[in-house]
Amino acid sequence: MDFKNIILELRDNIAILFLNRPNKLNAFTIPMMEEIISALDKIEINDEIKAVVLSGKGRAFCAGADLSSGENTFNPSFDDFAVKEGDFRKDSGGILTLRMYKFLKPIVVACNGPAVGVGASMQLPGDIRIASRDSKFGFVFNNRGIVPDACSSWFLPRIVGISKALDLTYSGRIIDAQEALDCSLISSIHESKNLLDDAIGIAHELVSKSAPVSIALTRQMLWRSLGKSEPYEAHVIESKAIDSRGASEDAKEGVNSFLEKRPAEFKNRVSSDMPKFFPWWDE
Amino acid sequence: MDFKNIILELRDNIAILFLNRPNKLNAFTIPMMEEIISALDKIEINDEIKAVVLSGKGRAFCAGADLSSGENTFNPSFDDFAVKEGDFRKDSGGILTLRMYKFLKPIVVACNGPAVGVGASMQLPGDIRIASRDSKFGFVFNNRGIVPDACSSWFLPRIVGISKALDLTYSGRIIDAQEALDCSLISSIHESKNLLDDAIGIAHELVSKSAPVSIALTRQMLWRSLGKSEPYEAHVIESKAIDSRGASEDAKEGVNSFLEKRPAEFKNRVSSDMPKFFPWWDE
Amino acid sequence: MDFKNIILELRDNIAILFLNRPNKLNAFTIPMMEEIISALDKIEINDEIKAVVLSGKGRAFCAGADLSSGENTFNPSFDDFAVKEGDFRKDSGGILTLRMYKFLKPIVVACNGPAVGVGASMQLPGDIRIASRDSKFGFVFNNRGIVPDACSSWFLPRIVGISKALDLTYSGRIIDAQEALDCSLISSIHESKNLLDDAIGIAHELVSKSAPVSIALTRQMLWRSLGKSEPYEAHVIESKAIDSRGASEDAKEGVNSFLEKRPAEFKNRVSSDMPKFFPWWDE
Repeated sequence: MDFKNIILELRDNIAILFLNRPNKLNAFTIPMMEEIISALDKIEINDEIKAVVLSGKGRAFCAGADLSSGENTFNPSFDDFAVKEGDFRKDSGGILTLRMYKFLKPIVVACNGPAVGVGASMQLPGDIRIASRDSKFGFVFNNRGIVPDACSSWFLPRIVGISKALDLTYSGRIIDAQEALDCSLISSIHESKNLLDDAIGIAHELVSKSAPVSIALTRQMLWRSLGKSEPYEAHVIESKAIDSRGASEDAKEGVNSFLEKRPAEFKNRVSSDMPKFFPWWDE
Repeated sequence: MDFKNIILELRDNIAILFLNRPNKLNAFTIPMMEEIISALDKIEINDEIKAVVLSGKGRAFCAGADLSSGENTFNPSFDDFAVKEGDFRKDSGGILTLRMYKFLKPIVVACNGPAVGVGASMQLPGDIRIASRDSKFGFVFNNRGIVPDACSSWFLPRIVGISKALDLTYSGRIIDAQEALDCSLISSIHESKNLLDDAIGIAHELVSKSAPVSIALTRQMLWRSLGKSEPYEAHVIESKAIDSRGASEDAKEGVNSFLEKRPAEFKNRVSSDMPKFFPWWDE
Repeated sequence: MDFKNIILELRDNIAILFLNRPNKLNAFTIPMMEEIISALDKIEINDEIKAVVLSGKGRAFCAGADLSSGENTFNPSFDDFAVKEGDFRKDSGGILTLRMYKFLKPIVVACNGPAVGVGASMQLPGDIRIASRDSKFGFVFNNRGIVPDACSSWFLPRIVGISKALDLTYSGRIIDAQEALDCSLISSIHESKNLLDDAIGIAHELVSKSAPVSIALTRQMLWRSLGKSEPYEAHVIESKAIDSRGASEDAKEGVNSFLEKRPAEFKNRVSSDMPKFFPWWDE
């Protein structure tokens, strides 16, 4: 697939996915959404790739929905690309973030400038968000007469707390990188020139000593535990996963390498070695 | 309705609701609870009012349940006002906070002094809490031989984290404004003489650039997402809301005003223009 | 019961439970797990004991699973102690943390050194965690080819946030006490020589002015509210608890002692005076 709205690069075993409509401040469109999902699909089944960094080309991360349709931007009657389900048209930001949610490798977001509307909300299912010093974030939906998208009504309160999430979404005010750091929307602030290398470094640190199948299971176990009502539900999944992975080559290598004080070389693969009980949820 | 235990004022388009039993440190009674709910009902259907500030008259915010019944204060046999449901008497603090929970406009709590027992727990469904420098908070229920009320067992861990919530409720210890700020129970500390004006300023910032119907939907979407097990559940509501609001006059005005770089004038009203799928929950 | 892997001491009305395999850095075994649970059972039914402090003897808190079985450490085929349930072998860390979760008295964890693997995850159902300055924490499961245990996939994101939880579990990196404090994994850092006394002091502060039955109910109300989808569910339990406890001797003493400005003497007991609706969940 030839990408027109994104660029997909590989640095060692880390994929870098750039939003790439720099002249439009990477404004979000349905074709861009489809390309991101297509890229994630490719990354997920490629065992050489251990994690993905998501960033933007040019001076913005993403300025939000492309408003070139003017006042009909959010009007379903003018939407030729709509994916329908039952009685509603699926929000395209949500289609993307639900795909990110069930992704099996770590996602590091490197926010390189303004991130507004869906440009902010699409970052939330990232595992770690870092930002350049001149980044800005705006959940401006209520200013445009619409409501938060991309499942941000679910993600944002879990990341910044309910009070801050309401503050940001009611007002739609733009916050700078420092305020984003103070409320844990991002984990750290970086100089623009170092941002991408730093993000790649963080991605490396996440994956370099760990078994890929373990990471894939852990990503789903932790994100999905947020909605589980009892720790017992986590216990069932953890028990099955430890049972299954505990008998694997990876577990032997994990323990042996530790006892022998050498780096581990994990051979099991996400594409072929996920345990039988996976996925444990209904799609 | 003539209020005896509260005062309801209007400053521009912000309602100010004062607890008003200053000689009793605004001790909480069933009649006070009923008046607060009555005031919220009035505020909610008045489209001129965009948000509410909740504060106390005199030197306290609220000293907790009125203990003038002495040792029988919490004894259901001595409660002539009880609202019963099935096999239990409904906790009056909970009746109030459940009403606040489903309210459709932003609630800013301006804590002006000691807030103890239900005086602390009733603040939790507020969207933003700020406090004067001499404010104090005490979840003293266990010190009185009872348990946390007003749904604080649900709200408090989601606001300050489970560890701090247990610390505060087990011990019943009184914390000052600084500790409340450190654990995110409040968002900021203010000089007493500025507290109310600052709260009104915050309320203005929350609502001044946003569509009232968008804010009403956003309030329910975010608070209710806290209990949703999957982001997909948020996706369904967000999709329906964007579909519905995206075709509204508010969305056209939101986009047009942005493109024309002028303030938006949103005409849709909470009293008449909530979408058909609202409310999306069972009462 | 004679303990071989732990030590149980009493300081006034606070129990101190030490992991006690100091030559093995308190490495976790099934017999140790069984002894901890047995000790918790004893503490729970002893009305003289108001809270428990959990710590380790020697220079470590707990170095994780005992790896003396080498590469078969996590292999179910080599596990003679397994507790099975349906189609899976129950994770032993989870058996312990589920017991801690439903415990009826405050748990303060005093982390006295390295806490790795299950040594870190078993601390999470503690109500408050404090640590010595030289403590270290490592959720190293993915480094060993397995996955997070002891229900940590449920507990950890609720304590440190989803982003930090993923960072720690993907990478398995070891963090020091300062980073643990910064992400709220612990509440405070202490000099090693003061750690135990400080933990006991904190435990005293949690329980000294509160009714034991109120604390027991509060512990379950708050922890279990984390998985409740609506505040209304908390309202039902709170209403029943206030109804029941409001008519108790403890509530009379709580109010009277307050009005008389004297310390309360609560006479109701966890062993005999829990309300009829307790437990309100299915086991």
